[in-house]
Amino acid sequence: MSEDLKQAALDYHEFPRPGKISVELTTSAATARDLALAYSPGVAEPVREIAKDPDNAYRYTAKGNLVAVISNGSAILGLGDLGPLASKPVMEGKSLLFKKFAGIDSIDIEVDAESPQAFIDTVARIAETFGGINLEDIKAPECFEIERALIERCNIPVFHDDQHGTAIVTAAGMINALELAGKKLEDATIVTLGAGAAAVACMKLLLNMGAKVENIYMLDRKGVIHSGRNDLTTEKAIFATETDKRTLDDAINGADVFVGLSGPNLLSAEQLKMMADNPVVFACANPDPEIRPEVAHEARSDVIIGTGRSDFPNQVNNVLGFPFIFRGALDVRASVINEEMKAAAVRALADLAKEPVTQEVLDAYGLESLEFGRDYIIPKPTDSRLFSALSMAVAQAAIDTGVARLPLPAYYPLTTLDALYK
Amino acid sequence: MSEDLKQAALDYHEFPRPGKISVELTTSAATARDLALAYSPGVAEPVREIAKDPDNAYRYTAKGNLVAVISNGSAILGLGDLGPLASKPVMEGKSLLFKKFAGIDSIDIEVDAESPQAFIDTVARIAETFGGINLEDIKAPECFEIERALIERCNIPVFHDDQHGTAIVTAAGMINALELAGKKLEDATIVTLGAGAAAVACMKLLLNMGAKVENIYMLDRKGVIHSGRNDLTTEKAIFATETDKRTLDDAINGADVFVGLSGPNLLSAEQLKMMADNPVVFACANPDPEIRPEVAHEARSDVIIGTGRSDFPNQVNNVLGFPFIFRGALDVRASVINEEMKAAAVRALADLAKEPVTQEVLDAYGLESLEFGRDYIIPKPTDSRLFSALSMAVAQAAIDTGVARLPLPAYYPLTTLDALYK
Repeated sequence: MSEDLKQAALDYHEFPRPGKISVELTTSAATARDLALAYSPGVAEPVREIAKDPDNAYRYTAKGNLVAVISNGSAILGLGDLGPLASKPVMEGKSLLFKKFAGIDSIDIEVDAESPQAFIDTVARIAETFGGINLEDIKAPECFEIERALIERCNIPVFHDDQHGTAIVTAAGMINALELAGKKLEDATIVTLGAGAAAVACMKLLLNMGAKVENIYMLDRKGVIHSGRNDLTTEKAIFATETDKRTLDDAINGADVFVGLSGPNLLSAEQLKMMADNPVVFACANPDPEIRPEVAHEARSDVIIGTGRSDFPNQVNNVLGFPFIFRGALDVRASVINEEMKAAAVRALADLAKEPVTQEVLDAYGLESLEFGRDYIIPKPTDSRLFSALSMAVAQAAIDTGVARLPLPAYYPLTTLDALYK
Repeated sequence: MSEDLKQAALDYHEFPRPGKISVELTTSAATARDLALAYSPGVAEPVREIAKDPDNAYRYTAKGNLVAVISNGSAILGLGDLGPLASKPVMEGKSLLFKKFAGIDSIDIEVDAESPQAFIDTVARIAETFGGINLEDIKAPECFEIERALIERCNIPVFHDDQHGTAIVTAAGMINALELAGKKLEDATIVTLGAGAAAVACMKLLLNMGAKVENIYMLDRKGVIHSGRNDLTTEKAIFATETDKRTLDDAINGADVFVGLSGPNLLSAEQLKMMADNPVVFACANPDPEIRPEVAHEARSDVIIGTGRSDFPNQVNNVLGFPFIFRGALDVRASVINEEMKAAAVRALADLAKEPVTQEVLDAYGLESLEFGRDYIIPKPTDSRLFSALSMAVAQAAIDTGVARLPLPAYYPLTTLDALYK
């Protein structure tokens, strides 16, 4: 980042007031009667109704549209473990995105817990407050145990976005990229550099969608994960196959796909040249990708490349997923976000990229035209159709799999946020 | 409550959208540049600054103006233990009052904990998120242990409003009522019916202000608390003196003050007649007081009576306290709300009642005139001067006692909420 951008970011957070979110009233509180309804004595009525039937909390409180963004700050973006308080700007930023893109009220909670179990207990005990929980920036492998336990203990959706949000958006882009490359996921050889929460979740989702575990080579700091290693966590062990490949050079040779969730410049032009025809490269390290697009294109003309950045084509960005996935889940009061709902989001996202691009999107990016193809495999974050397409698909999948407690709302398909409470 | 009012209260909570509060953006999130500042990559800068110095969380996040209203729902208003979820409308209502009266962003957190220790651990672990914690509707005696432990573990103000808010407002009214009755707190015989969190806190504050413990008779369900009883909690035991009084009849005979924090109609006209000249009666049970004002006035003409209700004179209501106490504490970044800050709030509140009433207040209550006297011993909740008077007094007391980390802000004395972020 330039010094100018750094200062602009600090100013943005400090003015006009510290932070990015506030709590506001949705009702009138101007008169003595208003206050008698909002607080004592009127408030006793909704209290009694909720005591009779907990579902009434969705009718009389903000719960149903409220998502907590919860972190312990142990894996903040590319910055590492800086602790709960330092993660607060990121979590407030996530709350901002929830509101901006999907009209969801969201508040950040930073948890200072001495162990994964303490973190789990803490979140489980406050979960009733919310309609959903978005876990964020929690390091692996603790994040797997934490998410698993919380899904089991809570009756509201719990979703670790670093895992599943990344996986969903990556998978959607992958489907389209492979189609353009004339390949099938079932046959593709996939190399993934990085074995953290995001990489594991991406590969698990690709497995669910048809990829073969024997065609996946996952690399951690020690090299290729294989069945001869005895230092693997449960999650990494899923990808341990019998192979004599040990290094990135070994694995990349002839591979169809490279997914980078690691660090800057870790894929060289020479390694890219070793890949099969029409290679698909998702270099998602932020802010500096594993290989820069101009370097990749110079190395070979048949590469299809995506990154995490908005200033290159094919931005693989979580904001394409989580706001709309939660919107759909909340709108039909789903108890979980299950695999089918994630798959529905992947399909909706992939399909939307094939629709003609709207003028709105062209204007936002200063483009004359944009068509489905090697430089446009995934929708742009500013595409307002994400809202209707993903929310509807996720909500319908929840209904179809029996985890929804409401039918599709009358205001579906959602085209504007204003429709939500009309 | 009438059936009409009950339905109006339910409608108020259900429309235009469920609940009373929402989360909104305080910054622009319209352009790609905005998002690059609010989230990746710009957000890394405030993260780094907070990692360097935790105080920067007050500069770059919403923490400094954010108060959590936290409950386990074990003692909801007059309704009892209905559990965390059922308490949510009350807690959202409190958040609404924080915003409306003092411009404080406030979010409710309902905690489902299996023990006081689990509650303490949970709140302590999420405390960094907030600038202050308002505990609410937690039953005695657990509330004492919980508050004590959290004050010790947290470096932000923790305040159990049912105790201290009630005590502060009661004490302010009491000072003025005793002055009008021509009596001194040091000499007054005080009977308090009820020995819950509020009653204990009220009497402790009166003790701090000069009342004598041998002149206080506290009654729980078993009658007068005295040194011969072996069933007393630590908190009740503070008020156990040697006495042969056992019943309310015994205690009320010749008493100067009655403070009711119990239930409806528990003080009879006959008992009122047994009190000393110019008796002071605070009948604060909600919604139905221990004795109704018209019954009291019919029994004797020299009574000075306050209740918790807005439709009678002398409303002893917590909303006169907590929003402004937290405003003052947050504005100078106090680490606690100590006894001196509470005493400053008491004095500021008592003094304000002696100032000429503004037209604004007269209009709100449809009154021609209102002067300090038996029917006006404490300010009205709609008096906008509460804001400047209490916040300033509390902030100054924090500075004077060395618990403030900032000087009085430049925008003091606060006269309008708009001044806060200018």
